Amino acid sequence: MAHIDLGVDETEFPGIRGPMMYRPETAKPLNELAEVLLRAQPHSMTPGERELIAAYVSGLNNCNFCCSSHSAFAAAQLPTGMQLVDEVRASVDEAPVSPKLRALLHIAAAVQKSGREVTTELVAAARDEGATDLEIHDTVLIAAAFCMYNRYVDGLATLAPADPAAYTESAKRIVEHGYQAPVPTP
Amino acid sequence: MAHIDLGVDETEFPGIRGPMMYRPETAKPLNELAEVLLRAQPHSMTPGERELIAAYVSGLNNCNFCCSSHSAFAAAQLPTGMQLVDEVRASVDEAPVSPKLRALLHIAAAVQKSGREVTTELVAAARDEGATDLEIHDTVLIAAAFCMYNRYVDGLATLAPADPAAYTESAKRIVEHGYQAPVPTP
Repeated sequence: MAHIDLGVDETEFPGIRGPMMYRPETAKPLNELAEVLLRAQPHSMTPGERELIAAYVSGLNNCNFCCSSHSAFAAAQLPTGMQLVDEVRASVDEAPVSPKLRALLHIAAAVQKSGREVTTELVAAARDEGATDLEIHDTVLIAAAFCMYNRYVDGLATLAPADPAAYTESAKRIVEHGYQAPVPTP
Repeated sequence: MAHIDLGVDETEFPGIRGPMMYRPETAKPLNELAEVLLRAQPHSMTPGERELIAAYVSGLNNCNFCCSSHSAFAAAQLPTGMQLVDEVRASVDEAPVSPKLRALLHIAAAVQKSGREVTTELVAAARDEGATDLEIHDTVLIAAAFCMYNRYVDGLATLAPADPAAYTESAKRIVEHGYQAPVPTP
């Protein structure tokens, strides 16, 4: 049970969805940020690649709800699906991703620890593999943003469904409607 | 010098202001979130108290720019000014704050480590001192959000002015115009 009364049935609105129903004033910019970072087009990184960074960081933060959600969202939008997500979460260095995406994932892992862990060397390595300033910027902000979303979800002790089907269902909604779709009234 | 070319003179747009000029699409929700969390009225916590939580968490994350900025913003809006900010940053347990604010600062410190550090006991202690669900929610989200802003600012290696006057000047702007004022063209 969540630490505060969210005013909704948590089994119906699990994870971040409860606090978003509880406080629509903060839900609005939180959803807009996710939409711009993870889905907005045009962008040189696909939504699947951007969701993969979100899933990876959420895993590093041990946030079950966000990691399961964004793993499902990434899988739904990557050609190789959940297998690639699992491989990246197991080992960024051994997963079959492009050298550029690998270098960006290294930056994301540094951000998860602290902004100060992002060294000139990590940034130069990404640039050597073809990463642009915008890709480096967005990787830093995606990783930073999930250090927020993860803490928000777990700091309020919200429910993380155990059934993987719940996340697959959410993935359909996000892929079809994005993060700013109107939320049904509880 | 920042890790990427922000397209602005960093001495004129230090810290988060450079990345916000560089990427207005993400600046918009980031500013809106700060405005709702730290300034929006009506709210049972003053802007000074909310900025104090932001300054405290930014200090725990060793983010010089954000800690100096939000310390100045808190000081400008608290009756006892920078002295209270310094006392809270030195020791939450000894600082002359209300028992409720102290309990909320304990929750913020837990969030800074991980959402999972926020225990039922910490939440019960805040509630025992009169904290409402909304105050607990906003404290968790302010602390979580500064784990994002801090990583964003330091992950891009932006400039943190050494001169305290720079932050006092920014405080005037924030107190007068808030976080969503139009940004001057570089």
